[in-house]
Formats: sequence, C-alpha cells, structure tokens
Amino acid sequence: MVTMKLLRVGTAGAERPALLDAGGTLRDLSGLVADIDGALLADGPALDRVRAAAESGELPALDPAGLRIGPPLGRIGKVVCIGLNYHDHARETGAEAPSEPVVFLKAPDTVVGPHDTVLIPRGSVKTDWEVELAVVIGRTARCLGSAEEGLAHVAGYAVAHDVSEREFQLERGGTWDKGKNCETFNPLGPWLVTADEVPDPQRLPLRLWVNGELKQDGTTADQIFPVGEVVRYLSRFMTLYPGDVVNTGTPAGVAMGRPEPKPYLRAGDVVELEIEGLGRQRQELKDA
Amino acid sequence: MVTMKLLRVGTAGAERPALLDAGGTLRDLSGLVADIDGALLADGPALDRVRAAAESGELPALDPAGLRIGPPLGRIGKVVCIGLNYHDHARETGAEAPSEPVVFLKAPDTVVGPHDTVLIPRGSVKTDWEVELAVVIGRTARCLGSAEEGLAHVAGYAVAHDVSEREFQLERGGTWDKGKNCETFNPLGPWLVTADEVPDPQRLPLRLWVNGELKQDGTTADQIFPVGEVVRYLSRFMTLYPGDVVNTGTPAGVAMGRPEPKPYLRAGDVVELEIEGLGRQRQELKDA
Repeated sequence: MVTMKLLRVGTAGAERPALLDAGGTLRDLSGLVADIDGALLADGPALDRVRAAAESGELPALDPAGLRIGPPLGRIGKVVCIGLNYHDHARETGAEAPSEPVVFLKAPDTVVGPHDTVLIPRGSVKTDWEVELAVVIGRTARCLGSAEEGLAHVAGYAVAHDVSEREFQLERGGTWDKGKNCETFNPLGPWLVTADEVPDPQRLPLRLWVNGELKQDGTTADQIFPVGEVVRYLSRFMTLYPGDVVNTGTPAGVAMGRPEPKPYLRAGDVVELEIEGLGRQRQELKDA
Repeated sequence: MVTMKLLRVGTAGAERPALLDAGGTLRDLSGLVADIDGALLADGPALDRVRAAAESGELPALDPAGLRIGPPLGRIGKVVCIGLNYHDHARETGAEAPSEPVVFLKAPDTVVGPHDTVLIPRGSVKTDWEVELAVVIGRTARCLGSAEEGLAHVAGYAVAHDVSEREFQLERGGTWDKGKNCETFNPLGPWLVTADEVPDPQRLPLRLWVNGELKQDGTTADQIFPVGEVVRYLSRFMTLYPGDVVNTGTPAGVAMGRPEPKPYLRAGDVVELEIEGLGRQRQELKDA
C-alpha cells in the first residue's frame, strides 16, 4: 500500500498541502487538492486521486529546507479531548479511573504546527506537557452503535501536544477548559497518517522528553477507553464532523504527577514528543 | 446614528449577508461584503462602507417572505460560555455565586439560526433552556487590563439560546461540555446589533417562554461579572479573535431550578426568547 503521510507546509495561515512519500521525499499536493481538511477526508474519490498521484511518483518535489511545517489539517471544526484516559495517568493524578470518558474542548485556534513555539501564558506557574494520540474524523458520526463503527469514522491519526495550565485548569473554579485553551496550546502533526496505515491504534508507543530527558513513555494499549469506543461515546453527546479532532488522552509522566517541586515548564525549555509511525514534534517554550 | 442590525439569510450553510434598516426593510449586503464574520467586524473601513450604504437607502431590498434567517455570524472561531453568571440563577441552582467566572466551551457547529428546529438528543431526559446575551468579539484580545478595554473589544450583541442537557452536563462525570455540545444546541440571532447601538449592555431585559408561558424574566443588571469584565477575564486565559462569540450566562427560571417534576423540554414544545433591542427567537423542539 502506498504511504499516505499528509502534511501542510508554509507560513502560518497560508500552508499548502503536501505529502511525504514512501521514499521520504516531500511532494507538493497543491495542484491536486485545495487543502488537507474535512472536505478532502470525506471525499473518497479525491483521496483516491491523491493516492494515485503519490504512487505515480510524478508529484512535484518540494525542498524541505527552511520550510515550516504547519498543522496537518486546516479548517478544524472542533477539538474534543478525553481526560484521564490512561490507567497509569489516572493513578498518578490520584483520580479513580473514570467510569465513562471525561470530555472537554479546545478551540481550533489553539492548534499550531509541530515545531512552532509554545507560549507560557502570562501569570502561569503550572504549564504542563501531555503527549496524545489525535484522531481525525473522516465521516459524520451521530449516535454510533459500536466501537467498530467508531473506528470506521476515523480518517487518520496524528501526534498532539495537549499543553495544559494546571492552575488555570483545576484551581480557578469551573471546568477544565480554562487551562486548556491558551494560545499555541495544541501543537499538531507533523503528519496526518491515514487510518489504513495504522493497523492497530491500540499498540502505539508514545514518548515525550523535556530538555532531552524522557518524561512520558506510554502506550495506547493502556487507554481506558480505546479509540473506537471514544468516537462511539462522543457521537452520543455531539455530532462529529469530518475534520474534527479528538485528543484521546495522555499516559503517565506529566509534571503534575511528580513530587514537589513539580517540574513545570519554563521559557527556554524544549519539549520533544513522538508516536511510533506518526512522527516527532519539537517545541521551544517562550513567555507570552 | 444609522441602524446596524446585521443578519444572514438563506439556506443553512449558504446564507447571504443582509441588513435590517431603520424602516424595517431587509436589504441585501451581498454586493458589498462577502459575509458577516470576524474579518468584516475587524475591518473598520468595510463596516463604514456598510453604514454608508445603509444610510443611502440604495441597497437592494429583499423579500423576507419564506426566507430563512441563519445565525448572524459566519466562520465563528469559538463559542465561550460563562456559567452561573446571574445572582438569581446561581441561587436557584443551589450554587454559591462564583468568585471568578466559570468558563466552558461550545463548538461553533452547535450554532443554528434563531428559528431553526432544536433537536432533543437521543436518550435525553433533561433538555433545558437558557436565554443569554451573546457578545461578538471585534478585535483580538490578549491579557486586557480593564473591563473598559474588554468592552472596547466587543463588536456587537445578539440573542443566544444556550440549550443544555442537564444529565449529560452534570451527572456523567467530567466537565460541563458534554451537555452543551449536542447538535442545534446554540440558536443565535436574529440580528447582530453593533455595539454602538447598545449604550449599556448591563440594562438589557431578557425573557424566555415555553409554549407561551413566561419562564425567564431577567435583566443583565443582575450579571455577577458584567460584559467588559468577562471579556477582560477571558483574555487572560485564551486569546479572543474577531468573530468569536461569548455567551454571558442565563438568569433564573430554567427547568433545572424548578420543583419536581422539573418541566424539561419535549418534542413539540415551542421556546421563544428575546432581549430588548436584539430581537426574538422561536424554536420548535423535535426528537433527534
């Protein structure tokens, strides 16, 4: 099967669609599709044309030197997030494993490229990291009946960094959203890997380093609610549309779960994260 | 000053921009602006052209007969909501008045027109009503210093219906978002009334009826955190962009605050709501 690592390159807000082919060459897709977005993911024939073009080897090559990688998806409708979805992470936060998924939202405007700067909000003292498997929806999902149906509505996968400000999230009254929606708080990418390339989303190792030190080393096998079940569950409470993103939770190893003084992020820190087969991110932290 | 009641008319997803003039005539704006959205609201000269055209009386009239009214804003970036922001509503829910705003999010895909059908989610037994003053952001807001600055970033106001499923919101673990993001759960409009037409957003009467019976009868004077303060506060935790919407909370009178058996909404019910100067909504409830 032909490799389908979709990405978007160029300056923020003006990215062009591209593809990383099986040989590792970056190929321009802008002659073939307008963008990598929900409309493309819902359009089987258009995806087939992209596949055929990738196979032909005739897509124009792009020089990656100096080219920014943006988030691999444009026009994101919503970013739905699952909290406490790994057994080991629930334990480290002192929470019971939830009996049903904990759901919160991030605004699409928090999404940035995988190597973009992450801003520590003014007044923040508890900015934390979270490597996550992001699921991209490919078909409209309403009240699905099974986890299998849930999986069938997934177009692809990507690495997400669900950056979180714990004081804003947990100590300021109300819901978690307050600590999840700061500017630049959702690096996504580098690639959108189509679902056919990920034979089992419950066997993906996830890792995150801060300043080169391994902090999170988990596997999606430890998810309390697996991907298909998450999509099925969400589809009961909200309609999921092509181009929506679901962050499926983080494994153990976040700053919040460590002994005092907890090693929250500071300006100058460098976070790197990766999921096997989905690529690697690297962000430098700066003060907003 | 010339009246600026902006609206969008036509089939869902293909609305055209329009204006209701001082004489109550519906005028087509599609020759002048592409849409009513954040880009327009952030563009002073374009708004001035709309104003001048409205004043000239030369905009083509539209026949309102049979014309659907859509939400008055396209390409909404995010919908941020404030919970428990009226003294009387906090009291009826048994909650303390919060010491700082309670924040949650709705996805922009929940926004529908003011007279569109509202769907009762499958399995819902506690679908509730909430009339709210919606604030539309006109300028990018980051870490604002004062409530006055907050108000200066508001482009206009509209009526919002923050439909809520209380079991999903409060009894299913996790944050409120689960009961706030069902399909059709945020009717908005009919108009976006520019801020210059609303001399004091803290003196607006809000009312809501179910099947003709008055259920909510409040005033924004009872808001715990007034509009400018809400915008200032939010701008500390997230960046607000032109075209973002803030639902500023609901006054007392929701179903949840009433004695058992609480009168939650059912298919066939009709909800009407209005805010003085901002127009009136009417929705029929149907099962999803």
